[in-house]
Parts: sequence; C-alpha cells; structure tokens
Amino acid sequence: MATPKDIEDVKKSASVFVIFGATGDLSRRKIFPSFFELSKNNLLPEKFKIIACARSDFKTSEFVNSLKDSIGPKDQKVWEDFVRKIEYVTADVEKNIDLSKVSSAISQFEDAAQVCPQQIFYMAISPFIVKEAIKNLGKNKLNLGCSRHPKHARIVIEKPFGFDLKSALDLDSELHKLFHENHIYRIDHFLGKETVQNIFAFRFGNELFEPIWNNQYIDNVQITAAERIGIEKRGEYYDKTGALRDFIQNHLLQLLAITTMEMPEKFDHNHIRDKKLEIIRSIKRLTTDEIVSSTVRGQYEDYQKEEKVDPKSQTETYSMVKLEIENKRWQGVPFYLRTGKHLEGKVTSIIFSFKEKGHKFLENFWEKPLPNHITLQIQPNEGIGIRLVAKKPGITTALEPVDMEFCYKTSFDTPQPDAYERLLMDIMIGDQTLFLGDVTESWKLIDPIEQVWQSGKPPLHIYKHGSWGPQAADEFIQKEGRKWLAPLLSICKI
Amino acid sequence: MATPKDIEDVKKSASVFVIFGATGDLSRRKIFPSFFELSKNNLLPEKFKIIACARSDFKTSEFVNSLKDSIGPKDQKVWEDFVRKIEYVTADVEKNIDLSKVSSAISQFEDAAQVCPQQIFYMAISPFIVKEAIKNLGKNKLNLGCSRHPKHARIVIEKPFGFDLKSALDLDSELHKLFHENHIYRIDHFLGKETVQNIFAFRFGNELFEPIWNNQYIDNVQITAAERIGIEKRGEYYDKTGALRDFIQNHLLQLLAITTMEMPEKFDHNHIRDKKLEIIRSIKRLTTDEIVSSTVRGQYEDYQKEEKVDPKSQTETYSMVKLEIENKRWQGVPFYLRTGKHLEGKVTSIIFSFKEKGHKFLENFWEKPLPNHITLQIQPNEGIGIRLVAKKPGITTALEPVDMEFCYKTSFDTPQPDAYERLLMDIMIGDQTLFLGDVTESWKLIDPIEQVWQSGKPPLHIYKHGSWGPQAADEFIQKEGRKWLAPLLSICKI
Repeated sequence: MATPKDIEDVKKSASVFVIFGATGDLSRRKIFPSFFELSKNNLLPEKFKIIACARSDFKTSEFVNSLKDSIGPKDQKVWEDFVRKIEYVTADVEKNIDLSKVSSAISQFEDAAQVCPQQIFYMAISPFIVKEAIKNLGKNKLNLGCSRHPKHARIVIEKPFGFDLKSALDLDSELHKLFHENHIYRIDHFLGKETVQNIFAFRFGNELFEPIWNNQYIDNVQITAAERIGIEKRGEYYDKTGALRDFIQNHLLQLLAITTMEMPEKFDHNHIRDKKLEIIRSIKRLTTDEIVSSTVRGQYEDYQKEEKVDPKSQTETYSMVKLEIENKRWQGVPFYLRTGKHLEGKVTSIIFSFKEKGHKFLENFWEKPLPNHITLQIQPNEGIGIRLVAKKPGITTALEPVDMEFCYKTSFDTPQPDAYERLLMDIMIGDQTLFLGDVTESWKLIDPIEQVWQSGKPPLHIYKHGSWGPQAADEFIQKEGRKWLAPLLSICKI
Repeated sequence: MATPKDIEDVKKSASVFVIFGATGDLSRRKIFPSFFELSKNNLLPEKFKIIACARSDFKTSEFVNSLKDSIGPKDQKVWEDFVRKIEYVTADVEKNIDLSKVSSAISQFEDAAQVCPQQIFYMAISPFIVKEAIKNLGKNKLNLGCSRHPKHARIVIEKPFGFDLKSALDLDSELHKLFHENHIYRIDHFLGKETVQNIFAFRFGNELFEPIWNNQYIDNVQITAAERIGIEKRGEYYDKTGALRDFIQNHLLQLLAITTMEMPEKFDHNHIRDKKLEIIRSIKRLTTDEIVSSTVRGQYEDYQKEEKVDPKSQTETYSMVKLEIENKRWQGVPFYLRTGKHLEGKVTSIIFSFKEKGHKFLENFWEKPLPNHITLQIQPNEGIGIRLVAKKPGITTALEPVDMEFCYKTSFDTPQPDAYERLLMDIMIGDQTLFLGDVTESWKLIDPIEQVWQSGKPPLHIYKHGSWGPQAADEFIQKEGRKWLAPLLSICKI
C-alpha cells in the first residue's frame, strides 16, 4: 500500500519484469493493460523492461501488435513509449527450453542500462505447470538476481496455490528452495481492489464502527461472491477445482479475515498478515457431521456438457459454508460464505447484520423487526451502505428502513485503477501487504470439507441458470432463522 | 406520538377548539393552515368545532375569508367542509370582555352535537397577557370542561413560558390553579418537527449508535440554530427577550436533552420527560467567571434601529453558550449551543464530533486529522449525515473524508406534515410526549447567565448582517482547539 514517496522511489529505480505465459489470457486481459496504464501515467521506473516470454514463435513487433486490441484506444506516442519497453522471447519454462535466452535478454538490459535492476518473474501460466516452471528457474539460476543483489529476485504467482494442503506445502517448499518468503508475491487480485483496501480505512480510520464490530452487536455476517457467467473456457482447470477451492479457500476467506481481524499494531505487511492468520487459525474446524449439515453444494444445469468437463462431473459450481470464528470478539456469530456461477446477478459483498436489542420499547411503532445492516460492496459498484431505521414522515409514528450509502463512483472523480495496476506497483515497491502469506492454514480448513464433499455428502444439487443457487441454500438459511441479504441489500445501484 | 389506532379514536371523538388570538400571526400562518390540512386529510373528529376568538369585530364569513390567502390553493368542496367547522366570536380574553359568548358557542355546539366534547383552549396570544387571560378563563369557568367531564379541559400555550425563573413559576402556579398538569400543552414547535422525532428513532431504533454515544467516543457536540432573517416585526417581544431566552432556553436545550438523554424504559411522555429533565438537571451551573469566559453575545448591526426596539438596546440577537453535562455518559464533553439572527445561512443542526483514537497506526497515510462526525440536521433540509474516512481511489493509499447521508426528501415520497399538524393531533389524542413539561429547571440554568449578561459581561459584540456572528465566537472556538462545524458539515444540499 503505497505512499507517494514509495512511488517516487520506484520511478527512480530500475526493474526488469519477465512474464512467463505472455500470450495467455491473464497477460492479455490484465497484466499488459495494467502496465500500459502505469506507463501512460508515468509511474514506471526510469529504467524498465518487460521480457514477454511464451512458447509461440513471435517477433517482438508481432507480439506487441497482438496486444493492441486488448488495450483499447490510445495516443500513438504513449503507445510507442510503451511498446519500446517490451521484448518478446520464445522459450518454454515448463520444459526448460531456451531459458538462457531470457538470461541473455536480462543481461543485455543490464549492460545497456548500466545498472543492476530488480528482477521480477511473473508466472502467468497454468497452475498445473507452476511447480515445474519454478524448478526450471532455479536450474537456470534465474532466482539469483544480478550479481550485485544476490538472491533478491522476486517471483509472482497466481492462485491456486496448490489444490489441497499437501500440494500447497509442496509448492511452498519448492518456492522456498529458491526464493526468500519476502520475495514471493502470491496474487489474490481481490486484495488489490479498491474496496477491499477501503475496508482497512473503514475499520481502522473511523472511530464509529470498531466498538460495535463484535459478537455483542452483530448477529451474523454474509460474504457473497455471485457471478453471472459460467466457467467459460476454463473447464480443464475448473473441473479439477470447484467453487470451494476456486473462491472460498482464497478470496472469501481473505475477505472474512480482513473484515474481522484485530487491529494490527503497525500498518505493514507482517503485522497485517499475522492478524489475518490469527483469524484463519481461529475458525472452527468442522466435523463431518457439521460439514453435512452446514454446507451446501450445487452445480448449474448442463455444467457436465461444458467443454473439457467430465460428463459425469460432480464438481460444484456453487458452494455455501457456515463458519464460526472461535475468539473473544466473534464467538457465536455465524459467518455464511457463498459463491456460485451462472447466478441471477453479479455481486460481491460482505454484509454485517446487527442484533436488535435496545429499541424494544419502541415496539408499538412497527410490526416487523428492522435490524441494522452494514454492507461492504465490492462488485458491481464499490461502496459502503448502512441500513438504518428512520421515522416515516407523517402524523403517526411509524418506523421504516432507510439506506445511507457512500459510493466510490459518485464520491470521487478520480478513476479507480485496476487491481493489477496497484499490485504490479506494490511488487516493484516491494510491499507485500496486499499479497497472500501462508496459505496452508486455509487449506487445513478447506481440505476436510472437500474430502466429505468428495464422498458425496451433502448431495450435489442441480440449480437453474439465473437462479440464486440451489433451493437447499434457501432452506438452510431459513432453518437458521435468517435470510440471504445479498442482493436484497445491494447498494450503489447507479 | 400517534399510532394509527390513536388517530382512529380521535376521528370517532368530539372536540371543540377555542383559539384566542385567532386574528394573530401564529393563527394565520400555522394554526388554521394546519387545521385545514387535517380537515382535508379527513383526520379531524367527526364532531368538531373551532371557535375563533379575537377582539376585532368580524362576522364568521368575513373571518374565514381573511384566512383564504394564508391557506393557499384548495378544492372548493374541501374549503367549504373546513369553513363550516369555524365560528368567529368577538371577545377580549385579556380584559375579560364577552367571554360568556365563548361559553354560549361551546354550549350550542354541545347541544347540536348532543355530546360532551373535549374542550381545548389555545392561547395564541401575546406572552405579556397570557397570565391575565388564564385568570379570566377561570373566572368564566372555562377550565371546567363540560359537566360530564369536569376539569378535563385542555389548555395550549406557546413559548415563552415566563421570562425568567420567577415569572415561569408564577405562570405555572396560575395554570395549576385551573388545570391539571396532564392537561397543559406547552408548545415548543421544534419538538413537532419530523427530524426531532426522528432523533428518537435514530438513537433508540438503531443498534449502531448507542454504544458510541458517550464521552469515550465523542469529543464535542455543536448545536446550531442560525437564521437569515432578523427580528422582523417582533421588536416589542424580542427586545425584552433576546436570543438566549428566545431560543437557547427552550429549543436548543430541548435538542440537547433529546440527543443526550438516557433511554426511557417506556416510550411515553412521562418517561421521556423524566429522562429529559434528568439531563437539564445535570447541566453544570456556570459560575460568573465561567459565564464571562465561556459565552459570547452579539447584536446585529442596526438592530437598535428596528421598529419598537430601544435605540440603546443591549439585547443580544446572537448567543453562544458552552455547557457541560455532569453525568457518567457525558462528563467532559463540551456542548456548544449557538443561535443568531441575520446570519449568512439558515441551518439548524446538532453535530456530534468524534474523537480520533484507533487509527494512529494509519498515520503515514494522511497529513491532517480526519475525525468522524454525525450530523442531525433539522433545517433547511432534514436528514442525517455521517462523515467518514475512506481511501481515495488511486495507486497510493491516501485517506479522504467522505459523506454518507440520509435525506428525508429523497428517501420518502410522503410529504412531511407541518409540526403544528402533528402537535394539534397530539393535543386531541391527549399525548404530551412532544410538549414541554417542567420548564423551571431550564430557567435555573439560564437566569444566572442572563444576570451576568445584564451586567454587561462579556461585552456585546456588533456583527454584520450575513456573517456567521461576532468574531469573538470564532476566536472562542479556536481557543478551544476546535472549529465551528455548521455550515461546514451541512448535508442534503438538494
């Protein structure tokens, strides 16, 4: 999380980014457009190079032309400035073919620039080959950085960080053979989003909320990540993963940790990671019986007909998990985490629903309970909403719920940078605050659920496209004496 | 504070309202238009009469014609329905002339309607003659009500309730000779305003605020009632009264009490009055030194040239008083009460300004302190605002203040009834919640300030029309290490 001084320091520095998987979807949609924005806004280091690397045989000029469409309208001069920073290298990091060409390109840049740049390796490649690719970096000594900064090369990897506890430990062990933890950047792009960071400001920059942010006042918390789209062309990856591991293990547990963690003593990545980890560790491990009774899994209709999906697949595209944090602050408050694809609407939000207590003496004036809610919305429009009770205008004293909201779009003229712009900048700065640390604790939580689900319990429910998921999830929350609050309490509908 | 059932009960009842001062300003601007609205909305009792009484010699038809302009556009049938309920009687309540004509008019209505109606006497007359008028009601046995409901007549009086402790006790004693306290309705029309009532809903209908509503979290509270207009044609009254007695003694102390009182056990007028009285009693009595150092008084330029004002008048048209509530909840929190005429803007608001504590660890990210504020705004647009800190969009982590607001006008289609409509309805229902109880406690607080001021201390500062009052008030708040928050934090600027 950068200060203006951090950015000035980066601008005076020298960096070389090697992007493996440069022709892939992530590179095209996110990484290169974000670098372009940084370049346009003059935020990149003075001495800077992107070495775009993939198996396909391209000339640099062909490669940069292929980027044009995904970057959109631009000034010719800005574009030329940008493409001058890119060099394409054909190599295969999985099969260890021609990685020496990457080394040479780095050396060339060093010689020309007459500096020892920060080396950064971005693994924008299939999760199934990441471990092998890392080994090959080591074989080619690409982890060492330049001779004057030994071992200080940074590595960037994308989720999933393993597929279960064992494979996550395995991947970590491979990484740690070559890189120090301080130089490993595990991207959960949710953490780069404006509103996720704003949660820090909301919780710790305001006096109003911390006193009520606990089990004395909060009845339940609902964390929802609903998507309208299906799995698209990611069948190969998704069918081996499922909603629990694709979204809950990382994004939703991170959101849970950020919104519930204790205040860190200092605002740096070590302190924040520690506090988040404390939360993940405090989540009650579910017994088999609890997994059967307190989780829901679903699959959208015709999922089995998707490309590269097993026609008998039992992989879930919807999952709901009820969790509890066993600490003083949160003991007794249920946390409902939900995610699904092909749902009716796109929304990502965390809703804190408050208990009703103090106003029983007003009860003549309404018929139904009207608890308060605070909505932290991440998608589609970022903002914060508070649902209050107010007096309905009129001679009689009747109460009605009303909403107050703060919406990023309407409150600020400043455009919001994409999460990736911020994350790339933080990697150059060397700030790990918005990156994941130890992921093994969340696997310890998820693995037992996954195992029970693999045994076929609870049953996999088929749900319709454009619904809000399996009916079993509605029945579940009703049995809890509650209801789903997203999209009901969605805010900033502009 | 009426429930729908209360209103149904009123509609089935019989009432006769006697309005003394029927040709006066208040009657024309507020009372008759409010009765008209109630009539139009079919909220008046089935059997209902207004006996309009004043000294001028009018026929009823002439009187009702004179009301036409102040009531505005209306349907002919609705108008006829309304005027049929009015009878004009010429009498002088101050000089006890022809009050028997009022008795006869009441009797006539009783005979025709064949009921014993609720009798209500509304003293919309000069405060200088109220005491005499009340005596004359007694002499004519108008306090007794009809024979079947002895002594149950209700009396409605308008502020000021005395001009100091002695005269207030005097007036109360006169009232209590003839009326039971349960039948005395002291109008502070501020209490009939939608937002003032909404303060009850805000504080006690929401779980969010009560935990932070105390000296642990609140740094200071500012209660402001600023007017653009001057004293207009009220020189005779105003010059004997001044801002302290005209506004602070009643309106602003009431707002203070409502926003700071403990939660009553029951939502009825006795419990609420008790809790408000507890607050007024807990306000620290100022010593002479404190009055000199912690109050500011001002007079607008050319006030002495106003009609019916003493050309050497030292009456204040601006006053500021710093108070402190000596109880567990509020000890140590300064309350700044300000009111003035001919100021730059019209605003009535209560602003709770919060301490800054928890977010010191974020301090790299901003330059100046950004405390939270909650604004309860009564005029010009009613609403509730929360000033928060949020992250400014962008690569760097900078914090900025943002506002969330709930505005009556934009949140509800329902039109807001005038305060007088609600108050008239509550008088018919017999609900004293929104009326003043014992006013002597607030005079005990105000009298010593008035006495020191009368001795010429602190000095009376002349201020310009369209300013925010005397510079001494700005210097005062600066010395306190704070600044005036209204109109800075005004909300609902539609």
